[in-house]
Amino acid sequence: MKICVVTGGVGGARFLLGVKAFLGWDPTGPAPDPGPDGPADTVTAVVNTADDIRLHGLQICPDLDSCLYTLSGAADTERGWGRQGETWTVSGELAGYGAEAPWFSLGDKDIATHLVRTRMLDAGYPLSAVTAALAGRWRPGVTLLPMSDDRVETHVVVEDPDHDPADGTEPALIALHFQEWWIRHRAGLSPRSITPIGADTATPAPGVLDAIAEADIVLIAPSNPVVSVGTVLAVPGIREALRTTAAPVVGMSPLIGGRPVRGHADACLAAIGVDSTAEAVGRHYGARSSGQGGRDAAGDEVGGILDAFLIAEEDSAEIPGVQVVRAPLLMTDPNATAAMVARCLDAVDVRR
Amino acid sequence: MKICVVTGGVGGARFLLGVKAFLGWDPTGPAPDPGPDGPADTVTAVVNTADDIRLHGLQICPDLDSCLYTLSGAADTERGWGRQGETWTVSGELAGYGAEAPWFSLGDKDIATHLVRTRMLDAGYPLSAVTAALAGRWRPGVTLLPMSDDRVETHVVVEDPDHDPADGTEPALIALHFQEWWIRHRAGLSPRSITPIGADTATPAPGVLDAIAEADIVLIAPSNPVVSVGTVLAVPGIREALRTTAAPVVGMSPLIGGRPVRGHADACLAAIGVDSTAEAVGRHYGARSSGQGGRDAAGDEVGGILDAFLIAEEDSAEIPGVQVVRAPLLMTDPNATAAMVARCLDAVDVRR
Repeated sequence: MKICVVTGGVGGARFLLGVKAFLGWDPTGPAPDPGPDGPADTVTAVVNTADDIRLHGLQICPDLDSCLYTLSGAADTERGWGRQGETWTVSGELAGYGAEAPWFSLGDKDIATHLVRTRMLDAGYPLSAVTAALAGRWRPGVTLLPMSDDRVETHVVVEDPDHDPADGTEPALIALHFQEWWIRHRAGLSPRSITPIGADTATPAPGVLDAIAEADIVLIAPSNPVVSVGTVLAVPGIREALRTTAAPVVGMSPLIGGRPVRGHADACLAAIGVDSTAEAVGRHYGARSSGQGGRDAAGDEVGGILDAFLIAEEDSAEIPGVQVVRAPLLMTDPNATAAMVARCLDAVDVRR
Repeated sequence: MKICVVTGGVGGARFLLGVKAFLGWDPTGPAPDPGPDGPADTVTAVVNTADDIRLHGLQICPDLDSCLYTLSGAADTERGWGRQGETWTVSGELAGYGAEAPWFSLGDKDIATHLVRTRMLDAGYPLSAVTAALAGRWRPGVTLLPMSDDRVETHVVVEDPDHDPADGTEPALIALHFQEWWIRHRAGLSPRSITPIGADTATPAPGVLDAIAEADIVLIAPSNPVVSVGTVLAVPGIREALRTTAAPVVGMSPLIGGRPVRGHADACLAAIGVDSTAEAVGRHYGARSSGQGGRDAAGDEVGGILDAFLIAEEDSAEIPGVQVVRAPLLMTDPNATAAMVARCLDAVDVRR
């Protein structure tokens, strides 16, 4: 069967481990050798690239790299990001030149990935081709497609944190790159808006629309609904493909008991006026059936994407037009996550 | 006094340690604080950049970096190049991607230098400004000027090493980047020609001509006469500045007993038809007095640059128009090298 997953980085990569486990694959190994008639199963991930950032002249794609490293067993699962056995010599030297972005740690192994990627991009290869080339080393099993080959960058507008409330003026509004807001400020400055700059004129990367159209089931990973799934949906054509594919589309709540399992989904949801509840997220995604909600980041009704939605056992939700299923949503290991995948298929009556 | 030195990389940097020692400075420290009327002494080095190479999208300037690292005590003097306490994680990972140039080792600390340099160059800063910025960290004491802000790259034409002599055809001629010939092939393929590509249309970097014109003495370091000193002389305007400066110009033989102390100067000299003897090198540089020799790499008489020439005690040379002085030329330590510098000044009757 063909499974298509819309996903972000660390959490999404962990979800993909479960998809591989569900198919009986080694979660951190390559896909099984195809039979004489081709592969029995395929997994394609449409990965958020709006977190990407250029630092030190290097193009960094945190979500794609989290998927590459996690799905091949090269990730540091203790630290939660980056490479196992990482070293930090280059960063230390950049600091020696006063040229470091101290809030964004770049390991030496990671830098090699960015050097290879940046060189290929500068040579004119699109990001999708670069990602395929990098995957040639890591063999993640999953076909990883960037949502777009075009440059999209999430920017976050906040009040100037250096403003002195005593001086009687209104604080200036400043735009931060998503990573600066997320990492440097730990999402601690209340965002006035979160916008994937460039998304409106981006086109889906080659293979993205086909993967959605040809899937037997589409899964929306329990990634951040605003800055991961939301930015993918902001690329024109992708939402429409999800609304029109013959495959059922099943989403998952990134919240358990109204709180994000990791990351700062609540701060992001607040920025677009969505409550941090499973029900509010489900209604924000909305039902594929017409006239049943589904909103973009600006709050405009744009048509929903869900047939079914998994929520945590401690939550409850009513989402017009969407079948809501309670299930354990903690991705403690690939087998637990595989059980989530099984529940997704059950919910829309898809059999492997 | 103002000392101007024309120089290459590792050997040239070692010579500059001796110039600093001659002035009573800490060889690996910054220049002394200037007095109320400015610095008592200055040293300016015009550094070869024709060895520069772009690898992995990084602009690498081996000779400038050898000077920066050596003159600040950051160089690995055991290995003879690169940084002390270097690590090699990035290179190992590049190899994992099949993206390494395995013949050109790039340490992690070194890569940070190249990242900073490349980012500044890509932002539009000329190499001379970038070098000054990097020197702000290292404080080498010596003002390091690239010979040119323009791109100049020495290419070496050799017979195709993969040619099979048994097949009856003539071997194809292929052009290698200097570094590929020097390091990968250890200068072991007989060069048909050695050409600093781009030198003919390059202009001297800001400060180069003034440093030569305003010097009290100009020293030609015992660097490679072809691929270090020769490429500097190939930049239009520099040879003329050396021929017309009021300062005396003193060169040094890079050969002792007819053999290079380090590197492959003999192979380079052979490629331009110059014998590996102190006399032949001295005649190749030629006398500043008119009609007394001085040739370019093509062998054309273009006017000489020397008033005096130091040769090793075991050598002898007769160079029309040039005062030849025998002296110990082994740069065993900064003090031994300082004695060479003193002999240079004595030879042309310059007093400090």
